[in-house]
Amino acid sequence: MSTIQDVARQAGVSASTVSNVLNGRTDRMRSETLGRVNEAIRTLRFRPSHSARQLKTGHIAMLGLLVPSIANPMYGAIAREIETLAQERHGYRVMMGNTYRDRDKEAAFFDDLLSHGVRGVVVISSLVDERHFESAGERGLVLVSYDRRATPGTRSGIDHVTVDNFESARLATAHLIAHGHTRLAFVTAAGMTMSRQEKIKGFEAAAAEANKTGRKVHAQVIEGTPDTQYGDSVMSELGRAQAHTIAALAPAGKRPTGLVAVNDMMALGLLAGLREVGISVPGEMSVVGMDGLFLTALSHPQLTTIHLPLPEMATTIVERVMLRLADAATPTGEFIFQPTLVERESVGPPLMRR
Amino acid sequence: MSTIQDVARQAGVSASTVSNVLNGRTDRMRSETLGRVNEAIRTLRFRPSHSARQLKTGHIAMLGLLVPSIANPMYGAIAREIETLAQERHGYRVMMGNTYRDRDKEAAFFDDLLSHGVRGVVVISSLVDERHFESAGERGLVLVSYDRRATPGTRSGIDHVTVDNFESARLATAHLIAHGHTRLAFVTAAGMTMSRQEKIKGFEAAAAEANKTGRKVHAQVIEGTPDTQYGDSVMSELGRAQAHTIAALAPAGKRPTGLVAVNDMMALGLLAGLREVGISVPGEMSVVGMDGLFLTALSHPQLTTIHLPLPEMATTIVERVMLRLADAATPTGEFIFQPTLVERESVGPPLMRR
Repeated sequence: MSTIQDVARQAGVSASTVSNVLNGRTDRMRSETLGRVNEAIRTLRFRPSHSARQLKTGHIAMLGLLVPSIANPMYGAIAREIETLAQERHGYRVMMGNTYRDRDKEAAFFDDLLSHGVRGVVVISSLVDERHFESAGERGLVLVSYDRRATPGTRSGIDHVTVDNFESARLATAHLIAHGHTRLAFVTAAGMTMSRQEKIKGFEAAAAEANKTGRKVHAQVIEGTPDTQYGDSVMSELGRAQAHTIAALAPAGKRPTGLVAVNDMMALGLLAGLREVGISVPGEMSVVGMDGLFLTALSHPQLTTIHLPLPEMATTIVERVMLRLADAATPTGEFIFQPTLVERESVGPPLMRR
Repeated sequence: MSTIQDVARQAGVSASTVSNVLNGRTDRMRSETLGRVNEAIRTLRFRPSHSARQLKTGHIAMLGLLVPSIANPMYGAIAREIETLAQERHGYRVMMGNTYRDRDKEAAFFDDLLSHGVRGVVVISSLVDERHFESAGERGLVLVSYDRRATPGTRSGIDHVTVDNFESARLATAHLIAHGHTRLAFVTAAGMTMSRQEKIKGFEAAAAEANKTGRKVHAQVIEGTPDTQYGDSVMSELGRAQAHTIAALAPAGKRPTGLVAVNDMMALGLLAGLREVGISVPGEMSVVGMDGLFLTALSHPQLTTIHLPLPEMATTIVERVMLRLADAATPTGEFIFQPTLVERESVGPPLMRR
């Protein structure tokens, strides 16, 4: 592997000139010199040593990325965006870990980040209590949290990037109400992550809003406990089981006709389960998902869902980490993105049973 | 963060005794001493520094993992298994990179692994030409390649772990033939990865086998070129487009009635596309996928597919890397796992059109 000295020799400059180029200190450099150095870097296929870099900056060119499970297509989608941006824009690599929303695994991951010399980390977790993230921040990690807002009433040492989860659920629910549904259920997993809490509030707000205008909307939350937090198919299997629960609600004329699923995987499971129990979608029951996974365009019926601006959110996540790695004094913030409704085939008017 | 010296002081032993405990050299240690050291490690929440570890072993406790795209649910599933095993069994972290099957991106990833001090790497690529992997091996990386066999006639410096792709396609094809199909198509993407080549051979072998027993099976390969290698939905969108191509084959009575898809995402795209063109599955056309993704249990109809033993393959991948990191003299090998058929709803008898 070539060294800085090799590049300097090839370009006919000093090693410190090469170092200046590598670190972007080129303001006062003659463009002809800059050109020669860049040419030598290319010719020798020179890549700066990461250990040398670490000695200078105090961290290595790597970000940590914690996901509940990379096998969940939603986390796979955002992880792909984040890794590609970190690498293509900043030459940073990504150390990825599955945490299964287990606090011990998260804590061990933070320890390992520090001991590897990684200081920037993206956390996809959404657990209600994020004190352990704040304390990781105090230990010198620069954190961006995805999929949740800051804890109200606290001054946070970490950035929060998220879609407006309240608005996602409000949009989905208002869409069902606009189609005439008055018996609604929000279908979710037990275990209150902050994003789920926000979605439930948005669901209830849409119902309350309709009731103010004289509609009689009945809104209930149906919660199920997954068998495990571990498997790839936790959410979809839970959705399938919830469909059986909903079908058993008696009398049939009183059960919900419009379902808002906490996420797309849950919604896809609901579609599969409703089919098993012989309830047609959207003929007898309407379903709206959330996340806008590409998979929702493959289901039968194709799923009406809430689209999240993933590329934009991923860009903000990566740029915030890089900015605060470069300047620790940068104030943290909340970056809330707006969702949009994608109309497909899984919502229709309610079946009138009397 | 605590140091070895802190632990030694707390336990009332020398730093070299602590080092012996950390490195498993405890055979001749008094159990009381060992107990004190372990107690001090716990009390101080001591974690060995990875830089110190690197000085001793020449590499850090991290594996590289190259995937074409982590947003593809198939790669997300195996990546989850590999990361969890590496972490829980060996305390190794995973540096993950999306390569989009781009050789330059793969080469840059290898450079970065070396410069970060990572020596073990798992490659999911399946490109026909793997000379650049072999040369990475010569540069000191310990490689395990997933999803392809070794290049025939060469002595490889890397391990290969894969399902028997020939057998996967043979099983899928024989299943269609057993249901009476005689006009078959293998639906794939252009661009010959080794796993695709092996699958096509398995497809053709099953047809040839049937023809030897007097059946008249017509087997064709239908190849499509994706718009991009980049997006999350490349395979499923291609499958959807291929369904339109197949529907347009004239006369309708001559078009294939049994489709073997190169993978599940392609098959799920075919189901969506066939529905768009009004061809019912399995009434008018049967479809078999390959990979055994959990998503195949959610489609409508549920997809008949080929199951791969992912946990077993992931275990072999991780254990082979660790073994060869520990002892570079370990000979490399090929580890071929057997697939099994999962019968669901997407295969029926052919519709007889005359």
